[in-house]
Amino acid sequence: MHREKLLSDLIDALRRLPGIGQKTALRLALHLLEHDRAGAKRLSQKLHEAVERIGECRRCRALTEEELCAICRDPKRDERLLCVVEHLSDLWAIERATDYRGRYFVLKGKLSPLDGIGPKELQLDRLEHLLSQRAIDELIVATSPTPEGEATAYYIAEMARPYGVKLSRIAYGVPVGGDLEFLDSHTLTYAFRDRRPLTVEE
Amino acid sequence: MHREKLLSDLIDALRRLPGIGQKTALRLALHLLEHDRAGAKRLSQKLHEAVERIGECRRCRALTEEELCAICRDPKRDERLLCVVEHLSDLWAIERATDYRGRYFVLKGKLSPLDGIGPKELQLDRLEHLLSQRAIDELIVATSPTPEGEATAYYIAEMARPYGVKLSRIAYGVPVGGDLEFLDSHTLTYAFRDRRPLTVEE
Repeated sequence: MHREKLLSDLIDALRRLPGIGQKTALRLALHLLEHDRAGAKRLSQKLHEAVERIGECRRCRALTEEELCAICRDPKRDERLLCVVEHLSDLWAIERATDYRGRYFVLKGKLSPLDGIGPKELQLDRLEHLLSQRAIDELIVATSPTPEGEATAYYIAEMARPYGVKLSRIAYGVPVGGDLEFLDSHTLTYAFRDRRPLTVEE
Repeated sequence: MHREKLLSDLIDALRRLPGIGQKTALRLALHLLEHDRAGAKRLSQKLHEAVERIGECRRCRALTEEELCAICRDPKRDERLLCVVEHLSDLWAIERATDYRGRYFVLKGKLSPLDGIGPKELQLDRLEHLLSQRAIDELIVATSPTPEGEATAYYIAEMARPYGVKLSRIAYGVPVGGDLEFLDSHTLTYAFRDRRPLTVEE
């Protein structure tokens, strides 16, 4: 089958997707061409439109086809709350899981000097510009609990200080349903450091 | 994110792929738009070209962009051997695993009257036409060892009889490395029925 030029081109293009190996690419190509040509056509069109028209939100760097993303456009979102995340997938996870109703800023990475990722690459000047408008009450830093994520959080905290904004960091600790016995020591350290007063309702 | 029209259209189109759920579709869309727009563009183009230009081989029903598929075009393939398979993926599996150098006929299914799949749907008239040209020495029936696959094999055998072609069925039995203890009884029955003489080289 590898001598069928177009088919093998399609399989190669599918293999470039993360988590898709040779066998899955074969299976997907076969499915699309034998059983779902309408779906293949639609996927081709939607991919084309998405690549051509989806860009970055001017304000928060999320993906959007408009100038501002749906969250930044939404007048019901609280513009006085700003949550900084590393990736758009983190934003999506927060949207799925929580009732957070503020806005976001997506760094698209974290500070990592060894990889050549500095404040410029994360476009922290745009975040600072948002802070300088002094319309934000609380900046919630939701970068990952990794050395780079921590460094990024501290860098942002330093940057935010002159603007007198309330700073917070999301809590890291024992995951709900987690078993202490099997938890890594870093998480357990965080969980102890960030322990909270236990109150008993009377 | 579901309020971004194009993005959610793309995610929906990706979800139609077999084995791709909501989470994977999100991950793929994000990867394509944030990290591999060139790959997304290429996939869109290749899908479009494949849907527009890939059709069925006039002779064997495999997928091809030409009138005849690469195997039917190949003068080095033995045209006196014809192997009947249910699906193109079976053809690919045989090509990968064996040194079979004959040609194929792809049924794109198996007889299943309850699902409305009869000889017409499998285009067995085209197979009969190939046999009627009397250029085939051996017809290898490689349908699956299921009731429908067996019924299909017997139907084809009946059909082929007038043309005096040698008929064979691929062997079903214990898979190499298989453990008798854990084998289903059908396979073990096949393995006993089709036992072969054990010869000792002197």
